[in-house]
Amino acid sequence: MKNIISIKDFDREEIDSLLARAGAIDAAPQIRKTLDGKQVALLFFEPSTRTRMSFTSAVARLGGTTITVDSVEGSSISKGETLADTVRVVSSYVDAIVLRHPKEGAARLASEFASVPVINAGDGAGQHPSQTLLDLYTIRQSMPLKGIHIGLLGDLRYGRTTHSLAYALSNYDVTIHTIAPPTLELPESLVTELHKRGCTVQEHEDITEVVPDLDVMYTTRIQRERFPDAASYYNVAESYRITPEILEGRKEGMIILHPLPRAGEIDPRVDALPCARYFEQARNGIPVRMAMLEEVI
Amino acid sequence: MKNIISIKDFDREEIDSLLARAGAIDAAPQIRKTLDGKQVALLFFEPSTRTRMSFTSAVARLGGTTITVDSVEGSSISKGETLADTVRVVSSYVDAIVLRHPKEGAARLASEFASVPVINAGDGAGQHPSQTLLDLYTIRQSMPLKGIHIGLLGDLRYGRTTHSLAYALSNYDVTIHTIAPPTLELPESLVTELHKRGCTVQEHEDITEVVPDLDVMYTTRIQRERFPDAASYYNVAESYRITPEILEGRKEGMIILHPLPRAGEIDPRVDALPCARYFEQARNGIPVRMAMLEEVI
Amino acid sequence: MKNIISIKDFDREEIDSLLARAGAIDAAPQIRKTLDGKQVALLFFEPSTRTRMSFTSAVARLGGTTITVDSVEGSSISKGETLADTVRVVSSYVDAIVLRHPKEGAARLASEFASVPVINAGDGAGQHPSQTLLDLYTIRQSMPLKGIHIGLLGDLRYGRTTHSLAYALSNYDVTIHTIAPPTLELPESLVTELHKRGCTVQEHEDITEVVPDLDVMYTTRIQRERFPDAASYYNVAESYRITPEILEGRKEGMIILHPLPRAGEIDPRVDALPCARYFEQARNGIPVRMAMLEEVI
Repeated sequence: MKNIISIKDFDREEIDSLLARAGAIDAAPQIRKTLDGKQVALLFFEPSTRTRMSFTSAVARLGGTTITVDSVEGSSISKGETLADTVRVVSSYVDAIVLRHPKEGAARLASEFASVPVINAGDGAGQHPSQTLLDLYTIRQSMPLKGIHIGLLGDLRYGRTTHSLAYALSNYDVTIHTIAPPTLELPESLVTELHKRGCTVQEHEDITEVVPDLDVMYTTRIQRERFPDAASYYNVAESYRITPEILEGRKEGMIILHPLPRAGEIDPRVDALPCARYFEQARNGIPVRMAMLEEVI
Repeated sequence: MKNIISIKDFDREEIDSLLARAGAIDAAPQIRKTLDGKQVALLFFEPSTRTRMSFTSAVARLGGTTITVDSVEGSSISKGETLADTVRVVSSYVDAIVLRHPKEGAARLASEFASVPVINAGDGAGQHPSQTLLDLYTIRQSMPLKGIHIGLLGDLRYGRTTHSLAYALSNYDVTIHTIAPPTLELPESLVTELHKRGCTVQEHEDITEVVPDLDVMYTTRIQRERFPDAASYYNVAESYRITPEILEGRKEGMIILHPLPRAGEIDPRVDALPCARYFEQARNGIPVRMAMLEEVI
Repeated sequence: MKNIISIKDFDREEIDSLLARAGAIDAAPQIRKTLDGKQVALLFFEPSTRTRMSFTSAVARLGGTTITVDSVEGSSISKGETLADTVRVVSSYVDAIVLRHPKEGAARLASEFASVPVINAGDGAGQHPSQTLLDLYTIRQSMPLKGIHIGLLGDLRYGRTTHSLAYALSNYDVTIHTIAPPTLELPESLVTELHKRGCTVQEHEDITEVVPDLDVMYTTRIQRERFPDAASYYNVAESYRITPEILEGRKEGMIILHPLPRAGEIDPRVDALPCARYFEQARNGIPVRMAMLEEVI
């Protein structure tokens, strides 16, 4: 039985194969019936409306049905029951489990007790492989992954999205440009691992200096909670804000991604530029999650 | 692409056509497959169980599936994301959006950013066109709309239901009798507009005096919050309570409607009378919403 | 029209027939289409994730769709509307109602106003017939019901699960061994009724003395709230904890059931023993609820 727990479990060939499957799904948009009569439980121990919605849509497009447990507060699942017991019972109701959980490692644990495949839809500071796969898919729509220059912007210390993406891209001989406020840089251990896997990693302090080199600019949210006071937050946030002016010197074909929701990181005037691909990126959650579901069930 | 935002966007012909479609659906109650393989997002930024349930049922009866975002508190959608961004992303998952929102104008705004049709399921003090259409449909089951005498009872100042219904009926040369407590009368601006559109509007203070004239009695809730103290509320509420005694002098064929839920506005003894049509009215939400969905998708 | 409100409404023949139907469903696990095009409302006025999930799964496996109203707080259904009105309106949307309600008698009341079948999914201290039926089904998978010795463990005063099960088993000439802390014994009135219906009921104080006699050990939760302080709770809970050691003298073929979720009542080491049937029991909720739905619709 297959699970999808971490992007680290995927080698390059497996990533390519899953992205190819997503591409095939995209090319033939009529309803597939590969999950006909199948049921998928969406166990969301923390809210994530966007992820839940796109998994729901993906299951329905494959002909299956979903059973959602949305917030776990007040539900019998939270009444002191262990995750192991919950997963064993839910396994007996459905054909696969999509799990979102606030604790790192929860998805791996769940997969050990489940008698059906488990897909990790994010577990705390841990992994969120469907986000990484849809990021890769979106880049590959515009260019081959091999050898690209990608800029990672924002909170690179706590942002699991960028960690997973960087790790996955290390299969493709890429150059990673990091642009983060002091104290929010990519963790040293990850940088070391990326180097070991053949990546070039370059740190930058200023966005404008790096824009002309980038094939992909991957922007993420900077959270207010990371800063001692509002003033220092706004200061930093402002200097990381993507505007049409900052993008003026970009390469032809460069694209901008963002996992969404965005707060003020991207000026709405950027939405109209052809390089703005973040809504397309959100849309790509559907074929990528359909491919993941087909893969495990 | 079509949206259904406000009953004001409908002329008489369009209303008649939609009601005729709902009638056709009612006459052939087997499952239609017009939404086969289609997905509809129900974005409910404020709770409205009844409206949500009947839209869910309507979509399923047409062969489609729904994705529901029920309360928005705690969901990622509320994390500072603009409605415009939410709607753009959700548009890429589904074939239509049904939106309920506490702010007037939200549905119109959403329709400007959505790439799929938007149906307004109520936006604050604004419009709730599916309620109006099912009200019209229910009246038309018993009599032609043209020239009827309708009584509007209760809180006519803040009740958007009665405003929309009055506006829609102004297409049909009706006479509107208003019966409301002081300070809760129909807004002056709406009365002026109704006059301009050819309606007769007559204000009354006492229900009993107007009962013999009515073809339709449309009762609504009077909310406790509108009154300075409990005593004055109960006083007013009691004098607007519909009882079998009050109805004794009614015309043959007169019907009573209420958008539900009701509190004490209608004596339960009225339920057994043939003129009580409010449960039938609730039921009519299904064919009318099916017709609306077919219209836009 | 049929409702399923209380296990007391079932005679032995009706129980046998429903269990046989569930067995037939289990034997032919492909999707049945007996609810094709049908809609079922799950009205959960109090949370019960597990029951809701298995009813959702059961409906989908029969080809039907569900409309869920999960928690009722903040929903329009709770805005002072009577259960009678809610049920009348919801009846007009769907083909059956599954009701969970905190107040005893709510399901019976609902069935009087509904124009579609009502299935009780638990009403307060009242009945929860689907739990009882799946308990019986699970026992019958291992042995005939007639003449068994069953031990009921834990809080037998407030636990409706054990009350309903004991009542249902009184159709089958069983011997009931009760093992409960002082003040949490089976209510005297129920013991009298069981005697009258031909059951033998034996009270015990110690688990170990009764283990060798049992064909079925039915364990339930002891709730902290029932005790004056934490110390006396832990004391009692510890002495009711099922361990492999306690089970050493058991009969061959004896099985252990628990309605789940469990807290610490069963040592996880027991899970690996062949007598541990509580996860199978949870799974059996699906065929039994499918049979109930087929029965009423």
